[in-house]
This record gives sequence, structure tokens and C-alpha cells, in this order.
Amino acid sequence: MKLLRLGTPGAERPAVRTDDGRTLDLSGLTADIDGAFLAGGGLDRARAALASGGLPELETAGLRTGAPVARPGKVVCVGLNYRDHAEETGAAIPERPVVFMKDPGTVVGPYDEVLVPRGSTKTDWEVELAVVIGTRARYLDSPEAARDAIAGYAVSHDVSEREFQLEFSPQWDLGKSCETFNPLGPWLVTADEIGDPQALGLRLSVNGTPRQSGHSKDMIFQVPYLVWYLSQYMVLEPGDVINTGTPAGVALGLPGTPYLRPGDTVELEIDGLGGQRQTFAQG
Amino acid sequence: MKLLRLGTPGAERPAVRTDDGRTLDLSGLTADIDGAFLAGGGLDRARAALASGGLPELETAGLRTGAPVARPGKVVCVGLNYRDHAEETGAAIPERPVVFMKDPGTVVGPYDEVLVPRGSTKTDWEVELAVVIGTRARYLDSPEAARDAIAGYAVSHDVSEREFQLEFSPQWDLGKSCETFNPLGPWLVTADEIGDPQALGLRLSVNGTPRQSGHSKDMIFQVPYLVWYLSQYMVLEPGDVINTGTPAGVALGLPGTPYLRPGDTVELEIDGLGGQRQTFAQG
Repeated sequence: MKLLRLGTPGAERPAVRTDDGRTLDLSGLTADIDGAFLAGGGLDRARAALASGGLPELETAGLRTGAPVARPGKVVCVGLNYRDHAEETGAAIPERPVVFMKDPGTVVGPYDEVLVPRGSTKTDWEVELAVVIGTRARYLDSPEAARDAIAGYAVSHDVSEREFQLEFSPQWDLGKSCETFNPLGPWLVTADEIGDPQALGLRLSVNGTPRQSGHSKDMIFQVPYLVWYLSQYMVLEPGDVINTGTPAGVALGLPGTPYLRPGDTVELEIDGLGGQRQTFAQG
Repeated sequence: MKLLRLGTPGAERPAVRTDDGRTLDLSGLTADIDGAFLAGGGLDRARAALASGGLPELETAGLRTGAPVARPGKVVCVGLNYRDHAEETGAAIPERPVVFMKDPGTVVGPYDEVLVPRGSTKTDWEVELAVVIGTRARYLDSPEAARDAIAGYAVSHDVSEREFQLEFSPQWDLGKSCETFNPLGPWLVTADEIGDPQALGLRLSVNGTPRQSGHSKDMIFQVPYLVWYLSQYMVLEPGDVINTGTPAGVALGLPGTPYLRPGDTVELEIDGLGGQRQTFAQG
């Protein structure tokens, strides 16, 4: 099942996209797709409503696509989680997941304008598989148990400013938390529809030039392990988002470091999760 | 003016504490003290209601004190912001603020039980001056302009697990984001009542032994500078919390590194902002 949110920022309507490409209105079922919806069995109710055939069609013409989850309580990121990306940045292969955070206020829709921060000369791209938490996860017993905590997956763009991230202090969050720096979506695709999260190709292009082409099988720490690991150190709540790392091909690792400028267009896609497209503008 | 929230977690009532020690009910004015309340001129409305003398008294017997701000959108922390603390941890004096984040879900009340994480042997204390944002701050022109963005101040306990923070990866957030790791309050004291945020003594004791005794004049980067600086890299929203760093005297820097154990009691206070007291328990 593919869930989405359509409308102006802060006033999105919840919806479900059918296999034959129609968009059905979920607003009779829930006011929003958020942590409370996921915690309260919302996915099961949406699935039942979809099966019953009673959901009204939604006129989508002209409607903006928002992030598929409203107001995540936190966005946890795993750094250097693909061997080739760790190598291109000159970092050692980590022995444990490298965990940092983005301001959850950075989450925007998949086609929204992304802002190059003022003073930035090193704005970079990162296509990532996002995990959306569906049930509270605290000290999970095993990576296997993590599967039940996952509501689903989405395409995530972990936009990064490398000078702020790597040169201004040893802590990365400053360069990860700039305004609009986390486009998410278009859909929250439920875990049952994706099956194996380690069987997904990820691609990103800039102004039509392919830049990243990776595969989630190459994650150093795989999705169930990451959810289990994080649950040993923090409480994962419904609606929380985990960005699971990016494969090689970011500007930082390319000859000439072709960082993003206002006017550039970035397109991202992940198998089964749809695509994003953002044009960058001056912040 | 001192604002507070009283009641069970998630169902706190907003209140105001008068200079003569009475507690008045604000729930006729607002459902909660949160970002929307602060953004919508709530402080002015509370001040007017208080001056009018019409607020009913609240029976506080048996009521828990919650954090004075509900659901911060983010908790931004500034590390190594007191010269003596940087020295005790063996770190260089930073040339720019060291910025990291805590899971905002870690915010609890000032007298709530704090949990030593499972597997932890290095749970540490940190008394800090918290800044609560009152109006949206984005690319502020100057540190002077930052003053208008500050709703007020509170005591914050930036509980930290040093093995998770410093040994598991170079990124600190993992050891800062454990369950219950950010007691806040008892009060949000408005900026006008505090005046100069660099004129406050901070103290912390463990099981009655004084451990930290610092002064906010010794911050390397002072409060208006920090708010201005952060606003260049992220959007600060009403209700967001900034932990401005801790003075010397944490367990990490003491002979024998006397880290916290279940059963330990920590007491904190900051001039004008009240005191906290937590007993630690096994997570």
C-alpha cells in the first residue's frame, strides 16, 4: 500500500494510491498520516477501507505532494553505511553505525524547492532509503524483532552542506539541518509491499547526469540491524524517520566536487518507492 | 513570568507561578504551553491575564511537574561552550560553536525518574542553561536581533552516556538521546524576568556532593551569539530548545570518573530558574 499527503504545507490531505494509479481520499479515516495514525493501527484501517472499495477518489490536479508522514518526532541518520561511499569520502569503514540527526523541521515534499543556504559553497546530494517507524521500539530483542516496528519505506534526500558538516566542527548535524534539507516521499510504501529492503536499487541524477547508482544490498549495516541497534540507545516512536545512508557518487567524492548551485535540478528514485525531483534555489 | 505545566505526562495543564508563590491555572487561555502558544502571542496574553487578576488558583497537591514546554520540535546542543569544561574533557577550545542534537523525545519533567540505559557504565550529568525560542529565527541579522527570538530560559539537564557519545563513533548524538535524558524546568522563565543570561550561577550536586559550580559569564559563545549563529544554518522555531553547554565538574573529568548508577540522586539549580532533582533508575 502506498500512502501520501496532498495539499499545501501544513494542510495536506491523507490519501492512498492504488495499484492502477488512482488516488483515493483517506480524510474520512484520519486527519493526517502521522505518528498517532501509525501508532493507532491506521495502516490496518486504511488497508481495510481500501479493500472495501468505499474510499472516494481525490481530484489531484494542481495539488502539491507533501512528505508522506507529518511532523516526524526525529530524523535519525546513519552515516557512511555504504562501503563505496565511505571510501570516496576518505573515511574508514565504521565498526558500528555512525549515528547523527537532522532537524525534523527539514522534512519537505519530494518536489518542493530546496534552498542552498546563504554562504554555502558545498551543498551536496545524497539519495537514501528512509525507514518510517510504525510501532514504538525500545530495547528490541533482535534485528528480527525490528521488522514489526517498521511501518514502511520512502525515498529520502539527505541534502548536506559539506563545509558546515565537516569543516565547522567535528559534529555533522549543522550541515545536515539547513532549511528544506530533507525531501521525503512521494509515498510511504508499507513494509509488506517492499518485502526485502536490501533488494532495492537507488539512483540520483543532477541536471540529467547520473551521479549515484547504488543498491541497498551494499549497506554495511542492514535495515533490521539498524533499527535494533538504534533501539538500544534511544526510543524510536511511530512516525520517526531513519535515513539509512547513501551510496557513492556524491559531489564531495567526485572530480572537481561539482556542488549544487541555485537552478540545479536533482532527480532521485528507489525501486518500488517512486521518484523525487527538486530544483534548487538561493536560501 | 514563570510558566509551568502540571499533571501526568502528555496531559499536563498550563499554569503560571506568581511572585508570591501561588500557582494559577492557564488552561482557560491555552490548551498547552508549546510552539503554537509561543508563536501566537501566548506570553503577552498570559501576562495580561495575570495582571487582570482573573486567573483561578490551581490545586497543585500531588501534581507532577512536566517540562515547561510541550513537544519541542528540536533540541539543539552546544558542546564545549565553557572553557573549563573543554579543558577537563581534554578538548581544544572550539573556534566555532560545536553543534549537535538530542532526540526531542528525551525531554521529561524536572523531578521525573531518569533511566540509566541498559549496558551503560558511563552515564554522566551536565547542568545547562536552556534557551526556549519564542519566534521563528532564520538568518538573523545580528546577535542583538536574537534577543527578540528568545521566549525565555529554563534549567536543562543534558544527561550524557560517555561510552555511547565518545567511543562508539565520532558523532555524539547516540550518547545524548537515550530515554529520559533531558529533564527540563521546572519553569519557563520569560526573558524579561531574567535580564542578562550571562549573569547566572549554575550548580549541580550528586547525592549531596557538589560537583558543578559554574557561571554563565564563562560561556565561550554567549547566548545571543549562539541564537544568531544557529539561525544562519537552521530555522529555529517557537518551542525549540537550545542547551547552551555545561561548566566543568562532570564525571568524565573527575578523578575516578564517578559515573551515575541506579539509585543516585542529582540536584541542579540555576539562579532565577529554580531547581531540579532526579533519582536515577535502571532502564
